[in-house]
Amino acid sequence: MDCLFCKIIAGEIPSTKVYEDETVYAFKDISPMAKVHVLIIPKQHIDSMNDINSENSAVVAHIFEVAAELAKKLEIDKTGYRVVSNCGKDAGQTVFHLHFHLLGGEEMNPRMA
Amino acid sequence: MDCLFCKIIAGEIPSTKVYEDETVYAFKDISPMAKVHVLIIPKQHIDSMNDINSENSAVVAHIFEVAAELAKKLEIDKTGYRVVSNCGKDAGQTVFHLHFHLLGGEEMNPRMA
Repeated sequence: MDCLFCKIIAGEIPSTKVYEDETVYAFKDISPMAKVHVLIIPKQHIDSMNDINSENSAVVAHIFEVAAELAKKLEIDKTGYRVVSNCGKDAGQTVFHLHFHLLGGEEMNPRMA
Repeated sequence: MDCLFCKIIAGEIPSTKVYEDETVYAFKDISPMAKVHVLIIPKQHIDSMNDINSENSAVVAHIFEVAAELAKKLEIDKTGYRVVSNCGKDAGQTVFHLHFHLLGGEEMNPRMA
């Protein structure tokens, strides 16, 4: 498997872990776009949002439970945060392992696109 | 219930519906930030991402199934799209009914925050 995020989950490539459980892994983005910038990913390899379906979507539900918990832990739940996932070229998806950006700690651009 | 999106779901305020099923409603954003800009919301009132937990997260899984289906239907699955949810002041959340922006149809700003 030649997937950067699968290698991070396996510990073959180092990362600054923020959270881990049986199905989800979260770590600091190495090129943060906000004071808080964490990537939350499923341990199961899913290429992108295009590949979410009723068979595998439970992990997405869990990722959003984890996002809410991490927002509290990182003390951005009161000030606010944004969760973003990019799919494909127009959105600039660079790693084809489904991931959700948790961004916060400062006021964000009202434009999302 | 004095919630704009609950009123849209109930048909009390008009919207351009894109999709509807038992638990999810999707409609065109009235102030689009991209050529395609759809809001996908749970019919159940949930204030924000802060309130997602293991009791109600199944609807979030379903929202992402719907997002993948809508991306195909709206023909942005190949070109790419972004899904964004904002929580609280720093992210500019204006309506306190959980919603996910589906944005696509053009190249998007690489900065997400």
